Amino acid sequence: MIRTFETHLIREQKELTGCLWDFIPCQGENAGKVYKVATPGCWETYPDFGNYRGEAIYRTSFVAEGDIRLEFKGVSHTATVCLDGQEIATHYNAYTAFEVVVKNLAHGEHILEVKADNSFNENSALHIPNDYMTYGGVNRPVVLEMLEDAYINYVHVTPYRKADKWNAKVEIKVTNLKEDAQMLDFKALIAEEAAEWKDVVIEANDSIVLSSELEFAEVSMWEQDNPKLYKVSVTAYKDGYAIDDLIDRFGFREVSVEGKKILFNGKPIHIKGVCRHEDHPQFGCAIPYAAMAADLDIIRHLGANSVRTVHYPNDELFLDLCDEMGILVWEENHARGLSLENMQNLNFEPQAEKVIDEMITLHYNHPAIYIWGILNECASETEYGKECYRKQFELIKKLDTSRPTSFASCKFKTDISLGLPDVVSYNIYPLWYHNTSVEDYLDDLYQWIQSDTEGAGKPFLITEVGAGGIYGYRNNYNSKWTEEYQAETLEKQLTAILNY
Amino acid sequence: MIRTFETHLIREQKELTGCLWDFIPCQGENAGKVYKVATPGCWETYPDFGNYRGEAIYRTSFVAEGDIRLEFKGVSHTATVCLDGQEIATHYNAYTAFEVVVKNLAHGEHILEVKADNSFNENSALHIPNDYMTYGGVNRPVVLEMLEDAYINYVHVTPYRKADKWNAKVEIKVTNLKEDAQMLDFKALIAEEAAEWKDVVIEANDSIVLSSELEFAEVSMWEQDNPKLYKVSVTAYKDGYAIDDLIDRFGFREVSVEGKKILFNGKPIHIKGVCRHEDHPQFGCAIPYAAMAADLDIIRHLGANSVRTVHYPNDELFLDLCDEMGILVWEENHARGLSLENMQNLNFEPQAEKVIDEMITLHYNHPAIYIWGILNECASETEYGKECYRKQFELIKKLDTSRPTSFASCKFKTDISLGLPDVVSYNIYPLWYHNTSVEDYLDDLYQWIQSDTEGAGKPFLITEVGAGGIYGYRNNYNSKWTEEYQAETLEKQLTAILNY
Amino acid sequence: MIRTFETHLIREQKELTGCLWDFIPCQGENAGKVYKVATPGCWETYPDFGNYRGEAIYRTSFVAEGDIRLEFKGVSHTATVCLDGQEIATHYNAYTAFEVVVKNLAHGEHILEVKADNSFNENSALHIPNDYMTYGGVNRPVVLEMLEDAYINYVHVTPYRKADKWNAKVEIKVTNLKEDAQMLDFKALIAEEAAEWKDVVIEANDSIVLSSELEFAEVSMWEQDNPKLYKVSVTAYKDGYAIDDLIDRFGFREVSVEGKKILFNGKPIHIKGVCRHEDHPQFGCAIPYAAMAADLDIIRHLGANSVRTVHYPNDELFLDLCDEMGILVWEENHARGLSLENMQNLNFEPQAEKVIDEMITLHYNHPAIYIWGILNECASETEYGKECYRKQFELIKKLDTSRPTSFASCKFKTDISLGLPDVVSYNIYPLWYHNTSVEDYLDDLYQWIQSDTEGAGKPFLITEVGAGGIYGYRNNYNSKWTEEYQAETLEKQLTAILNY
Amino acid sequence: MIRTFETHLIREQKELTGCLWDFIPCQGENAGKVYKVATPGCWETYPDFGNYRGEAIYRTSFVAEGDIRLEFKGVSHTATVCLDGQEIATHYNAYTAFEVVVKNLAHGEHILEVKADNSFNENSALHIPNDYMTYGGVNRPVVLEMLEDAYINYVHVTPYRKADKWNAKVEIKVTNLKEDAQMLDFKALIAEEAAEWKDVVIEANDSIVLSSELEFAEVSMWEQDNPKLYKVSVTAYKDGYAIDDLIDRFGFREVSVEGKKILFNGKPIHIKGVCRHEDHPQFGCAIPYAAMAADLDIIRHLGANSVRTVHYPNDELFLDLCDEMGILVWEENHARGLSLENMQNLNFEPQAEKVIDEMITLHYNHPAIYIWGILNECASETEYGKECYRKQFELIKKLDTSRPTSFASCKFKTDISLGLPDVVSYNIYPLWYHNTSVEDYLDDLYQWIQSDTEGAGKPFLITEVGAGGIYGYRNNYNSKWTEEYQAETLEKQLTAILNY
Repeated sequence: MIRTFETHLIREQKELTGCLWDFIPCQGENAGKVYKVATPGCWETYPDFGNYRGEAIYRTSFVAEGDIRLEFKGVSHTATVCLDGQEIATHYNAYTAFEVVVKNLAHGEHILEVKADNSFNENSALHIPNDYMTYGGVNRPVVLEMLEDAYINYVHVTPYRKADKWNAKVEIKVTNLKEDAQMLDFKALIAEEAAEWKDVVIEANDSIVLSSELEFAEVSMWEQDNPKLYKVSVTAYKDGYAIDDLIDRFGFREVSVEGKKILFNGKPIHIKGVCRHEDHPQFGCAIPYAAMAADLDIIRHLGANSVRTVHYPNDELFLDLCDEMGILVWEENHARGLSLENMQNLNFEPQAEKVIDEMITLHYNHPAIYIWGILNECASETEYGKECYRKQFELIKKLDTSRPTSFASCKFKTDISLGLPDVVSYNIYPLWYHNTSVEDYLDDLYQWIQSDTEGAGKPFLITEVGAGGIYGYRNNYNSKWTEEYQAETLEKQLTAILNY
Repeated sequence: MIRTFETHLIREQKELTGCLWDFIPCQGENAGKVYKVATPGCWETYPDFGNYRGEAIYRTSFVAEGDIRLEFKGVSHTATVCLDGQEIATHYNAYTAFEVVVKNLAHGEHILEVKADNSFNENSALHIPNDYMTYGGVNRPVVLEMLEDAYINYVHVTPYRKADKWNAKVEIKVTNLKEDAQMLDFKALIAEEAAEWKDVVIEANDSIVLSSELEFAEVSMWEQDNPKLYKVSVTAYKDGYAIDDLIDRFGFREVSVEGKKILFNGKPIHIKGVCRHEDHPQFGCAIPYAAMAADLDIIRHLGANSVRTVHYPNDELFLDLCDEMGILVWEENHARGLSLENMQNLNFEPQAEKVIDEMITLHYNHPAIYIWGILNECASETEYGKECYRKQFELIKKLDTSRPTSFASCKFKTDISLGLPDVVSYNIYPLWYHNTSVEDYLDDLYQWIQSDTEGAGKPFLITEVGAGGIYGYRNNYNSKWTEEYQAETLEKQLTAILNY
Repeated sequence: MIRTFETHLIREQKELTGCLWDFIPCQGENAGKVYKVATPGCWETYPDFGNYRGEAIYRTSFVAEGDIRLEFKGVSHTATVCLDGQEIATHYNAYTAFEVVVKNLAHGEHILEVKADNSFNENSALHIPNDYMTYGGVNRPVVLEMLEDAYINYVHVTPYRKADKWNAKVEIKVTNLKEDAQMLDFKALIAEEAAEWKDVVIEANDSIVLSSELEFAEVSMWEQDNPKLYKVSVTAYKDGYAIDDLIDRFGFREVSVEGKKILFNGKPIHIKGVCRHEDHPQFGCAIPYAAMAADLDIIRHLGANSVRTVHYPNDELFLDLCDEMGILVWEENHARGLSLENMQNLNFEPQAEKVIDEMITLHYNHPAIYIWGILNECASETEYGKECYRKQFELIKKLDTSRPTSFASCKFKTDISLGLPDVVSYNIYPLWYHNTSVEDYLDDLYQWIQSDTEGAGKPFLITEVGAGGIYGYRNNYNSKWTEEYQAETLEKQLTAILNY
Repeated sequence: MIRTFETHLIREQKELTGCLWDFIPCQGENAGKVYKVATPGCWETYPDFGNYRGEAIYRTSFVAEGDIRLEFKGVSHTATVCLDGQEIATHYNAYTAFEVVVKNLAHGEHILEVKADNSFNENSALHIPNDYMTYGGVNRPVVLEMLEDAYINYVHVTPYRKADKWNAKVEIKVTNLKEDAQMLDFKALIAEEAAEWKDVVIEANDSIVLSSELEFAEVSMWEQDNPKLYKVSVTAYKDGYAIDDLIDRFGFREVSVEGKKILFNGKPIHIKGVCRHEDHPQFGCAIPYAAMAADLDIIRHLGANSVRTVHYPNDELFLDLCDEMGILVWEENHARGLSLENMQNLNFEPQAEKVIDEMITLHYNHPAIYIWGILNECASETEYGKECYRKQFELIKKLDTSRPTSFASCKFKTDISLGLPDVVSYNIYPLWYHNTSVEDYLDDLYQWIQSDTEGAGKPFLITEVGAGGIYGYRNNYNSKWTEEYQAETLEKQLTAILNY
């Protein structure tokens, strides 16, 4: 299952996953054996592979010819892709999609092999031993698409309010797959309004970005209790014939920051949310649609209105569901608890920036995303760290000016980077990591931010609270790690914070 | 997700589930409220509906026109389907698919409502309070198909060995959707061999069954350790144009009974399997593909070679996986532990027979299915019961002569129906329901069958063993319901039975 | 450990349990083997005996001579006691103590064997298969006492208020162990007041009951928040020498019924309590003192002020703790859910009456006990059952007029015995066994009692509520048997009842 | 409950615990509140005190006069004892008993207060944050004894084999409580043999040690499968009257080391045992007798023949049970995983040596103890650490030459202290902390010991193996921390070690 709606009516598309593939571990006592496994999946959920860390090959075949596009929604954490034995792509990072276009494929059956590597080593600056799991496998769908002479890479829609009307900036990127320049027409349709680009010439093997503005007489806003979604449908024409299309969804809504308030469609919002890992006891990080929906049911039932994708970009299917259910999303690039030393790894900057670029390009249209987050609990108390934060916030603003930014800090009264984001955020664990009362701790922190930091006057979020608990560990004397202690601590934390 | 392979290249097909639908309970404190829920699903897994028993409406919309076919893979347990407010179908029983063809639909968006009812009452002879759960909901996929002038209802392939060669009988059923008679051509392709039916005339709104035999020079058998699958692809042509198709899979293999042996491709097989309910702690009976595959991983890892679908026909996806993994299937019609009184319910016979008909028609081609089972632990010790068993076995043989039949009895030395099936089967629970040793109990039973019943000389299966256990209940003194007692009892039961 | 205070300074006393004894099962694969086991204990907690039902011998030895008294606080459920191979006592019922006096024991080591039987059969009218466990074993302490020429069987103190002063009736029973009549003096001391009986002649091997009244100038009441206990110390003198003593505790408090109120020391009390079984996952019914105290900690911490000893008399140690902690006790004779047929067992009446007699005689002085209960959920809707209830209430009043009586009924609007007890009590399970709202169900029941029964105008207690739950079974959709459903249901039940 | 047998027939003795005491926390929100709590106990098991770390007072009263002895079996971890408001004793370390003798007590009720402190600070060198719990409370019994003019401090019996006969060295220590010298007689009785010391003069307030040797014609050995215990009964006489006594138990058995073998009664023994913490989910470290016995039931049922008291001396009751059940004991002084820095704490040496002295003096007679262990996993790879080990082994040999010594090392191929103990021991965790196979790891270690260390040629024990597991965490893919992984790893470790 790729998305919750159809993204192409013209371009032919087929999910390659959703069936059994061959799985061949490369190391250990089972190296070379061939297993049939369901995809998408994580090998940690296969009998005998619960603790396997290394490389393994996933193999399938498909029938196609001509120009094709393969999209890998997620391979953890490093992918090397071979088609008929030839390497055609590599990608680092489990949590963003990547594509490869292959031209002039001969007619017939083709062998696709994806080598996934989940080992920890110097080359991997973001996937390091951590307090969440780095799984191995082809853990999100793989899609095959048949292309014609050109194809639409993306469409980005930016809605905005002007003179009492909703407007939208529409930007598309298109690629010429031919060895010669081509002249093409494009049309983007939203509700009853259309933007058209005629007689566009694209050089051989080149890409071009086109932009337009639309105004709408009467549309419904995307609100949390009525999350109305609109489709944007882009079509490419050659000689009057439609040769490619791309359909995406968005919502009419604006997010902005005004003093200490975050405004959503012009009104202050009160964020009450949860942090969620893509992790499931049965499926690892390869979570079925039904399980995602069940998570959102729980979130909604708790009275929450948002979710933070700790600590990496999420599966598009999950974002689709948030769009449909009116759940706001803090989407976060991949990084958690990196020390100064971790940040000084030479791979850190390029790898982190690539995730940001992929995340924003791919998820630009989701109305549910109200903020971009980066670098949870990293070295924001150091000058070196601060410079990293600065660069990444700059990159985000280059890619998207329509949403505010933030990072979740845990540097209690030592953070020096609070001037950089639009929103100041803190993870706090009173009664768990220390015994200060929630009220005192929070007040101390907040007063310091307002009086001693560049974060003064900005909106302020508490982005984590918590207490550990072991399932089924209960006693009547409320000791740490019991369900009782966990429940009581969460109640105290939440009550104090919501009352603040 | 519908199947693990494509079933149509010509007929346009779209899954309507796999996204959020409206859910509207009809009774109780939340009657009339509208919820967004992921489909397929069971309402018992939604917050607030864990104990809901009654009726509820599932609602979605789709865009289509002309003649369409809607297929409902499973609605539990009674479905009433409305399209644009008009009732178009009803169906009883959670575990078999049903279809409805609607003609001449106007272009545009159409509202589809499925009222599901999971209540227990006199009209429901098979779904009664029982030791497994009757869930409520649209718990398997719903599929929309666009039809042309005619469509192929099914293709049934029966492989058989003759003169050292594999042959196959191919039978197709096709339906004329027009108000006039039509002349059509049909072609069924398997490997390199084709059966063709030319100039077939079908009367207005009528159906016809066509049959042919094929011989194969060289094909691979479907074996458990190499479950080679073949496609059968049927196409309908009108005036030379392909207007419909249907693709299914099967395997070259034969099952037969010879004395006390079950022969699979001519060799005796030793059945070591598990009984499996379609039930999952998170998803109820609406089990995602990944969870089905995980179940089969466990089954395979245990060293088992088969699964019994207690006590109802299963989701086709599960059967697809069994076909692909080489796991044999005892597929069972829906009924468990019916007393004589239950069997005398006037609805019992028609409802049970309808399930048999639907099950065999729909699952005919699955090579994994090696036996048809009926009426687990029902009143086979009574004359009335015996007559029911007799009629149902007759019906099965009318629909399929290529597989043996059986039923799982628990009537210790009182069963009078053992002459009816091809294979005698018993569910036994020594050390759980009573303290007789496994060896003694089994020997006593087996000697009685051989000496005092019409089951003498037939193959004999133990179809259930077991001991209850509560997750996490453990102690060092091995009391009943502990994991320790359960594990120890299972070991004793299995060891004794496998040694017998 | 026998009691939480010393009961003799003169009579020599020694616990025989609290060390390893021999344990010899009489049936099954381990029959005749000798195990060393800690006493007191239940054999169901020994490895290999978790499911043993039958007879087993517990064996120890002790050194003594002359006249001795052996007290068995509890043997489950039928005891046969042998000393040096000679049967000296038998006793039925797990939950009351019994004694045996042996005279003229030779000096030296003596072998004590207790055969315990926990099997179910016709002879056992109270221990039947039920929803609580009948364990096997010597599950409460065994005590050895050295006697002189006479001994004090019991002292019963009945405090009462008269003319603004506290008074107490003191009654002692004493036994002459000699073959000749003896003349003895007795003295009972409470606070500074003493009752004396001089020159009391007791016939050979006879017993006599003596009584006296005392008035107290200034004593503290036993109140729940200040449970002041007083000792009564009785001494027997022969020729001026103290030859025996017995020390017990009591409290100055009165319980009475006035219209719909239960008065405790003249003030209405509001009973908020729990039902407690003597059962522990590690120790069965042989519960260590520390575990009893932990239970009471939980009870107190819940805000409860009382406990009901469902469905049998409890270990004295537990009553001692209740006396000390100010927790009121509904003590109940042994019987639960007996059907009319169960009550018609010929052993039912004598066995039940014996438990009542033993319970009241032994536990008379505990100030915590505020009510005597009988026959939980038995056939109080039948004429036969009603007659049994009537006889047992008569017996209770013969033994003790200082406390009210009750029984817990579950006969919704059909009970015909509500005229018999002082207090009307009902066990109700709305939202668990049926779905009527707590308020409606309770109101319906209460109105019926007041308008249609002889229970009208009496105090009314709800003696059970509840919902089942399996430890660790949780889900987010609140289905029955989850911890969530249990917690929510209990909250609804308790809130509705406390508000009524 | 003090011991499993009577230790005095003459000296009057009474347990002060085994009833409710007052408990008054000194810090935190509940400081100064008075609770009634069952003793012995750990405050971490009281509602509201599950996480309390600090000081608290336990208070009771008793009636006595004259000279008394108070024995505290265990207070965790620092005790300050006051009698009637006067400090009479202090003691450090939770795991050894201490006594105080108070003279000339006035007749009447006396208030006893024990302030327990479980906080971590510089003064505490052994109780530090660690991987086992340091509880707070009066967690073992408190005993009151009434003394006459003198009392017996201890009796130590050392059995040994000479010229085919069993002999025993008997040593007693006695104390004169008077202000004048006294002349007393003493007699020690074992079986039929007696040692006597006549006209012994002890100076005022002085103690004296007396010694004697006995030879036995016919006694039974203490063997694991027939652990025959003998009593030694010591009586003190003044002017012909018995004024004090002390009864203890021992067994006739010898332990020695011969090359790579440990000889028990001259025969090599194969140690198969478990490590056990004094910890219980309900009772913390204040474990009831029944729970201790249940632990030993499990140990015995596993096929083990010994237990290691990781990482501190145990409750005497547990040792009594081991004596009675024939379970060998490695008793260990208190210390686990101390780093070099921890060992350099100035309190380390005196505190550790005091525990050794108390442990050996108090537990000298237990036949079950076959080895003394010290300093588990401390800095035995450093010169400083080695010197600490050397001094402590010297101290042990000064106190007891009848048993071998050892320490459990985890310094893989770096330990430099293996020349010091009689037995070389290692804790190993292959497949848990690293992935080397058990066989390889063990072989590598053993070869190194034999070829490169002073441990060569000594007996060798594996003193720990293991793998973590979370109760109820299970999956089918065997990941770390599951019960499956734990069970499988333990099986691999044990199989490999027992086969080595």
